[in-house]
Amino acid sequence: MYPDTPLDQINGIMQQAHLAFLSYKNLEGKKRAAFLRCIADEIEALGEELVQTAMRETNLPEARIIAERGRTTGHCRMFAEVAEEGSWVEARIDTAMPDRMPAPRPDLRKMLVPIGPVVVFGAANFPLAYSTAGGDTASALAAGCTVVVKAHPAHPQTSTLVAGAIQKAMQKTGMPPGVFQHVYGSSVAVGQALVKHPLAKAVGFTGSLAGGRALFDLASQRAEPIPVFAEMSSINPVILLPETLKRNPAAIAQRLAASITLGVGQFCTNPGLVIALEDEGLRAFIDHLARIIEESLPGTMLHTGIAQNYHTRLKRALEQQGVQVEAAARQEGTAMQGRPLVASVPAEVFLQNAALAEEVFGPFSLIVRCGSWEWFNRVISHLHGQLTATVQGDEDELKKHPALVNMLVEKAGRLIVNGVPTGVEVCAAMMHGGPYPATTDSRFTAVGRDAIKRFARPVAFQNFPDSLLPDALKESNPLLIWRMRNNQWGKE
Amino acid sequence: MYPDTPLDQINGIMQQAHLAFLSYKNLEGKKRAAFLRCIADEIEALGEELVQTAMRETNLPEARIIAERGRTTGHCRMFAEVAEEGSWVEARIDTAMPDRMPAPRPDLRKMLVPIGPVVVFGAANFPLAYSTAGGDTASALAAGCTVVVKAHPAHPQTSTLVAGAIQKAMQKTGMPPGVFQHVYGSSVAVGQALVKHPLAKAVGFTGSLAGGRALFDLASQRAEPIPVFAEMSSINPVILLPETLKRNPAAIAQRLAASITLGVGQFCTNPGLVIALEDEGLRAFIDHLARIIEESLPGTMLHTGIAQNYHTRLKRALEQQGVQVEAAARQEGTAMQGRPLVASVPAEVFLQNAALAEEVFGPFSLIVRCGSWEWFNRVISHLHGQLTATVQGDEDELKKHPALVNMLVEKAGRLIVNGVPTGVEVCAAMMHGGPYPATTDSRFTAVGRDAIKRFARPVAFQNFPDSLLPDALKESNPLLIWRMRNNQWGKE
Repeated sequence: MYPDTPLDQINGIMQQAHLAFLSYKNLEGKKRAAFLRCIADEIEALGEELVQTAMRETNLPEARIIAERGRTTGHCRMFAEVAEEGSWVEARIDTAMPDRMPAPRPDLRKMLVPIGPVVVFGAANFPLAYSTAGGDTASALAAGCTVVVKAHPAHPQTSTLVAGAIQKAMQKTGMPPGVFQHVYGSSVAVGQALVKHPLAKAVGFTGSLAGGRALFDLASQRAEPIPVFAEMSSINPVILLPETLKRNPAAIAQRLAASITLGVGQFCTNPGLVIALEDEGLRAFIDHLARIIEESLPGTMLHTGIAQNYHTRLKRALEQQGVQVEAAARQEGTAMQGRPLVASVPAEVFLQNAALAEEVFGPFSLIVRCGSWEWFNRVISHLHGQLTATVQGDEDELKKHPALVNMLVEKAGRLIVNGVPTGVEVCAAMMHGGPYPATTDSRFTAVGRDAIKRFARPVAFQNFPDSLLPDALKESNPLLIWRMRNNQWGKE
Repeated sequence: MYPDTPLDQINGIMQQAHLAFLSYKNLEGKKRAAFLRCIADEIEALGEELVQTAMRETNLPEARIIAERGRTTGHCRMFAEVAEEGSWVEARIDTAMPDRMPAPRPDLRKMLVPIGPVVVFGAANFPLAYSTAGGDTASALAAGCTVVVKAHPAHPQTSTLVAGAIQKAMQKTGMPPGVFQHVYGSSVAVGQALVKHPLAKAVGFTGSLAGGRALFDLASQRAEPIPVFAEMSSINPVILLPETLKRNPAAIAQRLAASITLGVGQFCTNPGLVIALEDEGLRAFIDHLARIIEESLPGTMLHTGIAQNYHTRLKRALEQQGVQVEAAARQEGTAMQGRPLVASVPAEVFLQNAALAEEVFGPFSLIVRCGSWEWFNRVISHLHGQLTATVQGDEDELKKHPALVNMLVEKAGRLIVNGVPTGVEVCAAMMHGGPYPATTDSRFTAVGRDAIKRFARPVAFQNFPDSLLPDALKESNPLLIWRMRNNQWGKE
């Protein structure tokens, strides 16, 4: 029904993306904003058809799809605001000093400009919010980049509907053709051809470690390497401090169980690892957790591949020596379902077996039982890069462990106290990204206002006549944006 | 005299850099500032010995070394200011909304934190300003990273003196040992071992395309890829608009000749390419340029390798079919000297021979003669990524060519009108970097205040008790920095 885009069309598509870029990049922020708002409107106008299609293709429940649609239109409107307000370009102005000795200082003005055509890979687990009109697409369009989206093969029809909405918005707001293009590829060849094309200037991807790393390698090996923003693999450790745990084992278990099973565990921020001292508090916690997990229900997963992958990886994790199952949902579920399960392992075993630190994408969490603070610290310093790290601990107890937060800052992009990692707020202060293998570029966030910075690069204009400067850098500040002028922030 | 650091010491060095990082990263900005200012003082305290040593090792004249020392201490003090002032961390605060429906918003606060130990490779052509205490080292230290510098083998003694000054500053300001370390390596093995070490988190390099690309490839192929900021190769095109040229052929020739021959052409911003319409204005310009070049003097180059490289590459360029010499310095000079030379080639030939777009590091420039606007535009769109692109054109004539600046923005990090590319101002609005192969990461500058951003990554703190937040994010804003709070800029 959705045959792969023929490889011999990729060059034409990228040429068009490039051509469109050369005009789209100069469009005023408010026009890009109008386009993004129109995309949001058109997605909403798809109404029930979009909801039903996404439900059918992903097995996600209606409420989730509706919430995700809200998130998608929400970030389109947020990036519209960012583009329209305009200060995101980080304008810097250093005015000329013609009399400076020994040499005059020229007038220098710098701002971020869009990086070029961006290739976006839709994600399986967010058919709307991280797919065709997802955060990558919306932030790239807001920055002034053109976008080529490869539809995720697990939900091509949803992707086609959203692509249609974007194309309608292009027509309604008079965007040049080629600002947004949509291709299909169930084989890897289509994605590879896009990433290797010389006119592609950046890549956005959300998916597996193997997939993300393959794209990163391909992009790094190009004659002209390009940045890849791949969000890949994270087990989102949750650290339980013993005094706090002892006081609230039931509440913490409840909170965590809800996070483990949320959306059948199909979130990049799913808490896949719990680290705690082995004591009676932990025992009580596990007992509470076990009761909740046992009563939880298996859920239908996104698609056959994801379900098979969960079963295979879960089986493999449970087969490792020293791993013991603490609790599993009573109901086993079908081959398409993910069964919530929690296991535990002693720290010594965890540290010696790299397989235990790998992501099991689904409703599974592994508790690492640490016999002493020494093991506890070794487990934490052993962690790979993560999207998030969570600590359950009250203020007094946290203060006793200053080295803990100090160490976690090196491991994750977002640190959470007494919350859960699932639930990624779309706002300026969000960091959704982290050291490898969580993402390929820990210097940028994939969610929130600053996600726009992934698709831009600075350019300085030296000694330019004012009339030839971009508006963001003109002397009169016609856009009224925040600028750093001779090292002072201001709007004048 | 300076044997290579044994490879079996690299692990210990990187372990120490990591250990020092875990405490240094938390040091207040004003303490890092005191350290950087002390480095500047200690470099000045080296006095005449440093000047004489650098002169002997690099063949650069005294005035240049003294100016470069001023630039080096200047950027140490500038980054001290940036670290002390503190707003560079891009603090973002989104306060909690406990009553928001359908779900409460947690308190989220984000800031840039230092990325980890940085490996810095000294540059041959700037023994002070881009070497041991160069912009990479100073900005990394300002960000809170620890640094391991590999001395450039062409000036190990200069490097050792500066390293001694930094180490003295470490002692005087009580820095943890390992904040700065200095190694030697005339073989590539030492640099490779540093870049491959798992505790290295970023790399700074200034040098050849081959060298920079090799480090980039090595870093990208690591189990955990790390960013490489390599500044490599740029021919810095200068575009002459015909009407302006016709009016001022002598003045433009004088300005350009001075830039071509400055420092024996040993600058990454040396104008190696001139693009112009073939007309009488160009002929007049070439005549003026030829007279100045003929009277210019060969200069002793940095070291044997650079001189040999200039002669080999120049010979190769001149051997290409269609290239004609327009002028050469009358005096041929010695094997260690670079002889200023200007050649020209028709656009048709330039476009067909990729070798002509390669950098010839030294006082050489190639003029591309375009028979029509069509050829002119084709030459410009054919350009690789550059550090700079310069246009000689007055405002009225520039306005007639809006597509020109539009195209150049895609090609270079800094655009200059009616100036020369040499002379890189150290300020907030500077962009020293550009699309590949100018640098490996066009999203960052190597010079100026924003160079600090290369060595940092964002981390978000969710739901943290105020007492456990870094000062930059505390509710009371104790550092008095600029922050974005609920999408509004301010200092409260």
